[in-house]
Amino acid sequence: MITKDLGNRIRELRKQTGLSQEKFALQIEMDRTYFASVEAGKRNISIRNIKKIADGFGVSLSELFEGL
Amino acid sequence: MITKDLGNRIRELRKQTGLSQEKFALQIEMDRTYFASVEAGKRNISIRNIKKIADGFGVSLSELFEGL
Repeated sequence: MITKDLGNRIRELRKQTGLSQEKFALQIEMDRTYFASVEAGKRNISIRNIKKIADGFGVSLSELFEGL
Repeated sequence: MITKDLGNRIRELRKQTGLSQEKFALQIEMDRTYFASVEAGKRNISIRNIKKIADGFGVSLSELFEGL
C-alpha cells in the first residue's frame, strides 16, 4: 500500500535526522499528530505536504520515493 | 510551484504515450476533467492518485518525480 510504504520511507529518513516526530514536525511547521499519522501510513497525503516533508529532509521528491 | 511542475511532468509523460487526456484518463479509470486539472497544475493531488497515474505510465514514483 503506497501510504504505508511512503510512511515507512519518511520514518526512515526522519530517523536519519536524529529528530523525534515532534521536533521534525515543529521544524517543518506541520501538526505533529498529522505527521505521526503520515508516518503510520494512515493518510492519503497531498503533494504539497509531501514536498514540505522532502524539503525538511533536504532531499528531492525523486530521492524521497527512491525504492518505493 | 510543485502542483504546476508535477502537472507539466505528467503532461510530458502522457504525450509520450500518444494518448489524449481523455483516453489516458479512461485507461486509468480517473475522471477526465479531474485529470485535465491535474495536468494544468490546479490540484493538490494525493499520493494515491499520483500512484495511479505513475502506474498508468508504467514508471516508478521516483521516475515520475525525476527532475522536479
